[in-house]
Amino acid sequence: MLELFVDIKDELQAVENELRQIVQERYQILTETSTHLLNAGGKRLRPALTLYGAKFCNFDMEKVVPLAATMELIHMASLVHDDVVDASMTRRGKPTVKAVWGNSVSTHIGSFLFAKSLILLSRYEDTPLIFDVLSNTSVQMSQGEIIQISSSFDINQSIKDYLYRIKCKTALLIAASAQLGAVACGAGRDIHLALRRYGYNIGMAFQITDDILDMIAEQRQLGKPIGGDLRQGIITLPVIYALQCCKDKKRLIELITKVEKNDDEVNEALEIVKNSGAVDYSFDIAQKYVMKAKMELKKLPDIPTRMTLGMAADFVCARKF
Amino acid sequence: MLELFVDIKDELQAVENELRQIVQERYQILTETSTHLLNAGGKRLRPALTLYGAKFCNFDMEKVVPLAATMELIHMASLVHDDVVDASMTRRGKPTVKAVWGNSVSTHIGSFLFAKSLILLSRYEDTPLIFDVLSNTSVQMSQGEIIQISSSFDINQSIKDYLYRIKCKTALLIAASAQLGAVACGAGRDIHLALRRYGYNIGMAFQITDDILDMIAEQRQLGKPIGGDLRQGIITLPVIYALQCCKDKKRLIELITKVEKNDDEVNEALEIVKNSGAVDYSFDIAQKYVMKAKMELKKLPDIPTRMTLGMAADFVCARKF
Repeated sequence: MLELFVDIKDELQAVENELRQIVQERYQILTETSTHLLNAGGKRLRPALTLYGAKFCNFDMEKVVPLAATMELIHMASLVHDDVVDASMTRRGKPTVKAVWGNSVSTHIGSFLFAKSLILLSRYEDTPLIFDVLSNTSVQMSQGEIIQISSSFDINQSIKDYLYRIKCKTALLIAASAQLGAVACGAGRDIHLALRRYGYNIGMAFQITDDILDMIAEQRQLGKPIGGDLRQGIITLPVIYALQCCKDKKRLIELITKVEKNDDEVNEALEIVKNSGAVDYSFDIAQKYVMKAKMELKKLPDIPTRMTLGMAADFVCARKF
Repeated sequence: MLELFVDIKDELQAVENELRQIVQERYQILTETSTHLLNAGGKRLRPALTLYGAKFCNFDMEKVVPLAATMELIHMASLVHDDVVDASMTRRGKPTVKAVWGNSVSTHIGSFLFAKSLILLSRYEDTPLIFDVLSNTSVQMSQGEIIQISSSFDINQSIKDYLYRIKCKTALLIAASAQLGAVACGAGRDIHLALRRYGYNIGMAFQITDDILDMIAEQRQLGKPIGGDLRQGIITLPVIYALQCCKDKKRLIELITKVEKNDDEVNEALEIVKNSGAVDYSFDIAQKYVMKAKMELKKLPDIPTRMTLGMAADFVCARKF
């Protein structure tokens, strides 16, 4: 859990308990793999946003905790499926499910966690909006992942293509997390839509920052090897910018489009991108999304949670991991 | 479509149209992969059962067609995820999504199809039972797959273990398909629970027959290579029987537990299993499930559909593909 979330420590603990309980199964391999994922930690950003959103109306633990757990389960399911795809062997500094149990188990554990999230969702049958938002979000998340794969090594993608992709892949679930806690606790449209837009904007900033960190972070802090996107041919914002502006464009294209790169080639590509000013440019874009997120907060009642959400918005850009 | 389903030809065509419409997306790769799957055909057993179930009450196309499509989407999603796991290159005689587009796309296309099924499900928000049954079924389907993987090459599993696994993997979705069309059209408990038990029993018979066919069918008719389960270490009913009864038990264990088998070794194992009487034994078990399914039909109103369902029960054991 992040230090930032200290004021909802007990609520987040309740989410943690809910998560651990729902993955209990008589077959050990199911509980073991799921618990491995839970123990790997993570920021719990999505459940925290769900809990915070609910603070803007009649906060009710019973109504909001299962939903917060649902958000984390959907997120975890997408991470596990992502690991199948990426051939990643570490995430958050620990071995992935794929690394320990293999591709086959990962694929089905992802589906298992997603299906478990539906079990929790059945408690919200009298609030159809929750189901509608999450089913649409899930479709778009898969779309985002598939578009990312099909556009890998493609140097002709635009910044607009990139932004659409990260919206699907990341921002929509964060938007839903911020929105739906409030919906579950009976908030009006003005409140939950402002929260949704706040979530969407920090989600965009979050993913852009993620993509920058993949180029400039310390492996120790990031918990996974640096330059991973470049290795896999995933073209992120800094690279798209560099392709438009750098002096060594020809060499950069050569390096990016090479399917098997050695470490020297990855590092050379990273250097060209960094020297183009792409990192500053990308941080600026992320910062603009943070600003937009904060504008949305102004539409919400002035309770202490509003300030925490402002700090959370700053955190997504300032973090080192 | 199976000849057997000729009396619901128009309704099945409506399901087909619904399926083709729901996978339309602005990104070509999504529509292309999904349409590839739809074109690969399949028996459409699950949607047919949903349609037939609804005939036992106030049949309403609008209420039942999206649900029938949901069943096929959930089934297709599990097939695509299965292909990631099995490293299968053909299914139903055609290349799998995995063979054409790779593991990564398959994983996410599976999730995409599943998420699309949720979009259709949102039309049934006023019938919570439908959502509850399908979320529980989905959890158990993933469980079944994971148990199958974790028990592969394990010669100590019992017939009971096997039956539980195929219940999760196959029978529960077929049970839900038979049950929920009736639920959507307002059937009472007696009707939809009898249909559910009918579906469960033919589902069990269906999977046992599938596992027998994997050993004795012609590759041309089956649409995939024979002996696939043995190659992957999946221990099915005929093998469990043979392990208990055959004279060459020691040699059979040797062959089964060998992770990499050549064609001669697969054929030798197949011969030992077939010579043990395991095929007849397994057909008998399948036949018992067919009988139980038919007993459930007796509890339903005597309309022409009841006879068709009786023939469908016979078909699952008699089929060659």
